[in-house]
Amino acid sequence: MAKRPDGAVVAVFADREAATALHRQIFDRLRAAILDRSLAPGARLPSTRTLARDLGVSRNTVVAAVEQLVAEGYLEAKVGAGTYVASTLPDDLLTAAPLKPPPAPKPMPVHADDLRPLPFRVGMPALDLVPIETWRRLMARTWRTLDAGSLHYGAAEGWPPLRRAVASYLATARGVRCAPEQVLVLSSCQAALDLCARLLVQPGERVWVEEPGYIGAREAFRARGCRLVPVPVDQEGIDIARVAPEDSAARLAYVTPSCQYPLGMTLSLRRRLALLAWARDTGSWIVEDDYDSEYRYEGRPLAALQGLDQAGRVLYVGTFNKVLFPTLRLAYLVVPPDLVDRFAEARRYIDGHSPIPEQRTLHAFIEEGHFAAHLRRTRIAYHQRQSTLVQALAARLGGLVEATPQPAGMQIVARLTAGIDDALLQREADRIHLTVTPLSRYHLGAASSPGVLLGYSGFTPETLLRAVDRLTPLVERLAARRAA
Amino acid sequence: MAKRPDGAVVAVFADREAATALHRQIFDRLRAAILDRSLAPGARLPSTRTLARDLGVSRNTVVAAVEQLVAEGYLEAKVGAGTYVASTLPDDLLTAAPLKPPPAPKPMPVHADDLRPLPFRVGMPALDLVPIETWRRLMARTWRTLDAGSLHYGAAEGWPPLRRAVASYLATARGVRCAPEQVLVLSSCQAALDLCARLLVQPGERVWVEEPGYIGAREAFRARGCRLVPVPVDQEGIDIARVAPEDSAARLAYVTPSCQYPLGMTLSLRRRLALLAWARDTGSWIVEDDYDSEYRYEGRPLAALQGLDQAGRVLYVGTFNKVLFPTLRLAYLVVPPDLVDRFAEARRYIDGHSPIPEQRTLHAFIEEGHFAAHLRRTRIAYHQRQSTLVQALAARLGGLVEATPQPAGMQIVARLTAGIDDALLQREADRIHLTVTPLSRYHLGAASSPGVLLGYSGFTPETLLRAVDRLTPLVERLAARRAA
Repeated sequence: MAKRPDGAVVAVFADREAATALHRQIFDRLRAAILDRSLAPGARLPSTRTLARDLGVSRNTVVAAVEQLVAEGYLEAKVGAGTYVASTLPDDLLTAAPLKPPPAPKPMPVHADDLRPLPFRVGMPALDLVPIETWRRLMARTWRTLDAGSLHYGAAEGWPPLRRAVASYLATARGVRCAPEQVLVLSSCQAALDLCARLLVQPGERVWVEEPGYIGAREAFRARGCRLVPVPVDQEGIDIARVAPEDSAARLAYVTPSCQYPLGMTLSLRRRLALLAWARDTGSWIVEDDYDSEYRYEGRPLAALQGLDQAGRVLYVGTFNKVLFPTLRLAYLVVPPDLVDRFAEARRYIDGHSPIPEQRTLHAFIEEGHFAAHLRRTRIAYHQRQSTLVQALAARLGGLVEATPQPAGMQIVARLTAGIDDALLQREADRIHLTVTPLSRYHLGAASSPGVLLGYSGFTPETLLRAVDRLTPLVERLAARRAA
Repeated sequence: MAKRPDGAVVAVFADREAATALHRQIFDRLRAAILDRSLAPGARLPSTRTLARDLGVSRNTVVAAVEQLVAEGYLEAKVGAGTYVASTLPDDLLTAAPLKPPPAPKPMPVHADDLRPLPFRVGMPALDLVPIETWRRLMARTWRTLDAGSLHYGAAEGWPPLRRAVASYLATARGVRCAPEQVLVLSSCQAALDLCARLLVQPGERVWVEEPGYIGAREAFRARGCRLVPVPVDQEGIDIARVAPEDSAARLAYVTPSCQYPLGMTLSLRRRLALLAWARDTGSWIVEDDYDSEYRYEGRPLAALQGLDQAGRVLYVGTFNKVLFPTLRLAYLVVPPDLVDRFAEARRYIDGHSPIPEQRTLHAFIEEGHFAAHLRRTRIAYHQRQSTLVQALAARLGGLVEATPQPAGMQIVARLTAGIDDALLQREADRIHLTVTPLSRYHLGAASSPGVLLGYSGFTPETLLRAVDRLTPLVERLAARRAA
């Protein structure tokens, strides 16, 4: 009986108030007792029945805790002879334990919801319109039909049926010309840009980017060590004729032809052909980011630049994260046939592949027509949300802010006609929990005129109206201060 | 009536045999009719009721197809005035359509299952032991409790509760000393190695790798443009005392201390302290890959190198993909506190973040004790599978192959004592659908003695026995050929 450490065991009471599962609490207390030697190495543990009684919990709860302690090497179960505290305890744990963990760099958000986007944040899809019930149903069905054998490694290129579905969607909706084999399923546009930066350009080489332009693309090519060459955009989009002679030898051009980011204009056919001719003649690459091309509210959908490319110099990037929901983590990159193997091989050694269950679920979502229906719904809603925002800005901030309706996209540019500093406006807006993004952020050089980018797609008309109500006095105050 | 293209519509019959959903077929046929102009721009479509009757399908089916065509811009619905073929059809589609897609680089597998691993493939977890029902249940629960608001972007560092769970698991099971803030949730070990290669070393700098060693790590540092320095391993693991003087100035060392890959020995305490001293004195980095440390069958679990590091030079890599199932795509990297922000920022521009639903599900799986239970189950099973394989090889291939029991890991080394060329054996084994990996593949220099790596963890004892039965005549034939 001397080996039976009742004292220690009695101390292992279960706190029913605590959030952690009971068996987890019991596991923790028993482990603590083992680590501080109050349960000595080699000591025999009371029967789970006894422990259950002493602790006033079900026997299963105790069994779960004990099994876990056995699994982790603190206890040893001897068949027919009960359970004992391991005699060969990992001493390093004991020596390691007292040492304090190093100071934390910064506190973590208590919950991912702390990242919930605030009004006017750009690039947010309408989560209130996600057919989450349908998605749940398809996800559940995928998991029902998924046998253990389907849980192994997937192809770096993506799940073949999804690659086919993407190719056919892009062919019909975007005029992209590709075989399914050219479609790579990746986790995001950013991952696609990162791959392009690694495989298409060398450190020190020039990359043309739109000025103003998308920050994520700049960061990807900057990380690769490329020299970013800002190329001005006008009403017709990027104008490569205005590239300075010393910057003309570029290896790659990053463009957003359908809906220039952040300004929203469409690349004219003239400019498209000029760009394609440049790539063909110089053997350079064009990365076409078509991330929000699904959202066009006027005129006919413009087919992708890729569809006009006869020389195989265009890589086409798109994503499902901005059309469905960001945590989906599925996007695609269409590459020329002769690059597929290189890109797949590189992806294999970057992050392997995308999860099969999500790819299967998305495939079903597309094949059953839910994707097209969701596009239609959101297209209508975003158009309405944009009108709501534009009208509200005109009504409340007429003389100070100028925002005109855009034919496409998920955000609008609001020009600060009263000459308010956009960076200042951002800082002040942050204080009242509004996320406005200064145009200057998208410029490598100096911004021509102050303005902010306001995202509307992710917020209901009601939310947008309330947000404009809160933005109005702030803008008025800043304008008055400036006038004074 | 002239505008009503009955002919075209009648041609749009529904093939009930075909796999694609009916509404999808109808969508395809109607779109084809529109594209080849047999349904002329501006033409009025018959009512969905009429179409449904003509096609002999339900009205809902037709509505789904028509709605999709409207969503994609082929049809225009005029409220109260029926549906018309779009008069402003995207012409580029028409010009693009006839152009053949370029030749495919290589055929896609018909199905991801073509990637099902063959016997002896290394690093495969036992999918037959995955508690898939439990996982399904937790995944379904996650999706039930997940509101649309939780579908937005997650933190690049990972979902905070999962980071906490990983930190506490590593502290108790592996003796890793870290705050939850130091844990980054990534998609795979490979992604972690890739991040380390990008952020810790510059192109041209030297990286010490174990010889023989893990290919994925070599590829990550090679892609970064580093100079790989093979450092020999012996019974005590990597021996940095044997590094040539000209290679002594390395920026980083990649090691597998718990279970050397591929040979399986454990890094001795002596060598561990030498390695830590080197990193501390030279300000270099140690990347500790602990990917299969969960699988130790004899003696006590050795605490991680990271837990002995007082100078903050060790980055610790582990994964759930090899412990649960590969398609999970969740792994972790523990970095020194002062590196967390740099790593998180870089990850933001590489692939953003890992999906929240999977992180929540895994968190529940750990917190409810299923993870520990699964570890215990697989640890017992793998030990048994290893014994089965070792005994079968001894019984069937005694004089030709030498394989000794390993105290840890998921694969064993089979020495080809009859001097059979291991690359030749691999090619021959491929023909009979066995995946044996020649040791020479893991060498940067020449392999000391011929051998193959045989994975056992992913295959049942029965499968392993049958596989040895098939391997035996092949090895005997090659040995005989060599003797002749």
